[in-house]
Amino acid sequence: MRIEILNTGTELLLGSTLNTHGHWMGQQLLHLGLRVQRQVTVPDGDAIEEALAEAVLRADAVIVTGGLGPTSDDLTREATAKVLGIEMIEDEHAVRELRSFFSARGYGRMPEANLKQALVPVGADVLPNPNGTAPGIYVPPRLGKASACAIFLLPGPPRELQPMFTAEVVPRLRALSGIEEAGEAIELKFVGIGESSFHEGIDEQLQRIAGLEYGYCARLGEVDLRLIGGPEAIAAGRVLVEKEFRRFLVSDDGAPLEKVVVEKMAAQGLTLATAESCTGGLIASRVTDVPGSSQIFTHGFVVYANQAKEDMLGVSADSLERFGAVSEEVCREMLAGALERSGADVAVAVTGIAGPGGGSEEKPVGLVYIGIERRGKDPLVLRKNYPGARDDFKWRVSQTALDQVRCLVG
Amino acid sequence: MRIEILNTGTELLLGSTLNTHGHWMGQQLLHLGLRVQRQVTVPDGDAIEEALAEAVLRADAVIVTGGLGPTSDDLTREATAKVLGIEMIEDEHAVRELRSFFSARGYGRMPEANLKQALVPVGADVLPNPNGTAPGIYVPPRLGKASACAIFLLPGPPRELQPMFTAEVVPRLRALSGIEEAGEAIELKFVGIGESSFHEGIDEQLQRIAGLEYGYCARLGEVDLRLIGGPEAIAAGRVLVEKEFRRFLVSDDGAPLEKVVVEKMAAQGLTLATAESCTGGLIASRVTDVPGSSQIFTHGFVVYANQAKEDMLGVSADSLERFGAVSEEVCREMLAGALERSGADVAVAVTGIAGPGGGSEEKPVGLVYIGIERRGKDPLVLRKNYPGARDDFKWRVSQTALDQVRCLVG
Repeated sequence: MRIEILNTGTELLLGSTLNTHGHWMGQQLLHLGLRVQRQVTVPDGDAIEEALAEAVLRADAVIVTGGLGPTSDDLTREATAKVLGIEMIEDEHAVRELRSFFSARGYGRMPEANLKQALVPVGADVLPNPNGTAPGIYVPPRLGKASACAIFLLPGPPRELQPMFTAEVVPRLRALSGIEEAGEAIELKFVGIGESSFHEGIDEQLQRIAGLEYGYCARLGEVDLRLIGGPEAIAAGRVLVEKEFRRFLVSDDGAPLEKVVVEKMAAQGLTLATAESCTGGLIASRVTDVPGSSQIFTHGFVVYANQAKEDMLGVSADSLERFGAVSEEVCREMLAGALERSGADVAVAVTGIAGPGGGSEEKPVGLVYIGIERRGKDPLVLRKNYPGARDDFKWRVSQTALDQVRCLVG
Repeated sequence: MRIEILNTGTELLLGSTLNTHGHWMGQQLLHLGLRVQRQVTVPDGDAIEEALAEAVLRADAVIVTGGLGPTSDDLTREATAKVLGIEMIEDEHAVRELRSFFSARGYGRMPEANLKQALVPVGADVLPNPNGTAPGIYVPPRLGKASACAIFLLPGPPRELQPMFTAEVVPRLRALSGIEEAGEAIELKFVGIGESSFHEGIDEQLQRIAGLEYGYCARLGEVDLRLIGGPEAIAAGRVLVEKEFRRFLVSDDGAPLEKVVVEKMAAQGLTLATAESCTGGLIASRVTDVPGSSQIFTHGFVVYANQAKEDMLGVSADSLERFGAVSEEVCREMLAGALERSGADVAVAVTGIAGPGGGSEEKPVGLVYIGIERRGKDPLVLRKNYPGARDDFKWRVSQTALDQVRCLVG
């Protein structure tokens, strides 16, 4: 089933309002096994009619948002009637709903301008809006000139659109599409490899799996691979990528790295302490983004200054002097101090040069030592180099640090 | 000048990635006095060619994002060459840039598949990408069959796209549109008030200022107001909003709150220590996002567990027992401990209930105590309630805490 979204509203194109409709609807439809084939944003005005006329020729269903208000630049209803080539009538029920909305909220008498919101193309359904004045409209297929395309008109504000989408749009799309044919989708999250790793063989093999659609989404130090299709196709694709990249696979439900770490440690009753210099608290903050992280996370030491490394973790002035703050030795002492002073089972420690300043010939910006230690076991300290912007550096260090914790606790 | 944005990427339509390109570019173009006429999102694959072919017929310039990676579903280059009806060649310079990108980061040998990223339509410009492997491409008007339309191909990741847009796209659009100085623009950042505050009167007054365009961008606990127009119009608008909201004004150059705090403290030679429970290191992390923050930030105590509050800050077990961790008393002891153990001039401390669990009748989820103390002065502790999602809660608490520091140091 080919579904398109048409977002209307000048504010969406001027950068004053972030358009989250496509994102939210895409998630809802994916749960139904349905996919958005195209999303278009146009300003208020004639462009709506033009874009809608194009969409109904391509799509089986078009979901239009915005332009259902009472003001002169709310033209979605009119544009739809023109595209369909049918008249509009005032819907009695919609008028009553409008009047009761105003009286129920003590807004007093309804302004006459709002009557415009009760106009619907002949033969269309009115979709009730318990959260605002603008009723939605559903135009079933084969009404007017819209050929086989179904059209949904929904209000722009998310708090009005989202309940209406769930209550009115989803059931109709189910009926129109016949869900059992729809495919499933899983999202495999990999940390520690780049998108390019996938095209060295894997990519071609995935293409050969019948009925499998897939797509990558690469972020800093992270790749999400989405597999879409029938259960067999997805299973085959998963076997293929796991054979190659198993140790980089963090989750198969889109769960972020920090959530996986918290859940693994909680399941084993382990606690974590963080000792951060160059990441400045980012690792602790990511861990505490996860509900229930208080089960595993106790102490976070943000030792930005050398003095703090001595005060808070007992790093020796001598080591700071001899090896420098960014060194394997200091990283090891940070681990030892974090374990001793927190009593946690596992400690992670990072010290590096975030830049832009502070780099040198033998210790360039981007150099970082990432250490991990489990009580009673030997520490492991990695030396990495992540040049680039300061926030990118911090993020990549936190990725590697959290992934090391993930691997350590298994 | 008619500008269209074409976003490519299946992940944008499946709801796995929120598409912020249109929003960001819309703001940038508004600064130039330019408007986006249409924004289209299509999945990876053949739809790119179809959508691009349509766009070049309508627009004077099309900005395409995504699909410049090395994998098989990165088809933007190929689609563009097809639409233009011209061949692609391997750009020598781009190849060298790619190889050096890999070697510079110690990624070792560049996978051969990445060579694909050096392919450009004959006669097009290569746009350097200092932040990733995918170079951008600029196709000037009247090249191939694209008639009078200019085409920009930009990488999908915002951290790669945004610098390239500023450095390579903006100057070319200026030249194409023939705008010398398309009005000035300033961005006033307010913390502690919402967009609705502006709709209560100010909005109407701004509309009456001749030659002034303005737009809001509201985020959690923050509103950016962009004023665009001639110097007089901007000055008049600024006087108007400052009369009303002066104390909420954080910056007039878009500088984030944490940067303002770091610069104010550095200018006065003051140092800061953070004591965080419910924000879990977010405040420290935001401070250390600012280059040069090591000048002012020394110690960060992330005291997530009660034991950590005792160990790291000397909070008394008695107070924790009698008043609970989320209390004014404990917040005061956190401030005292942070000042004493860090030697810093200023301390900020937060303790609250992020949820979703842990709330109670008299201490609901969202309750938080935000304290600030300057050595030798009396502490100030605010009691706030920020119900809502966990990450929203953390963000709003960090906003208020940093804003308190800003006000304290003046």
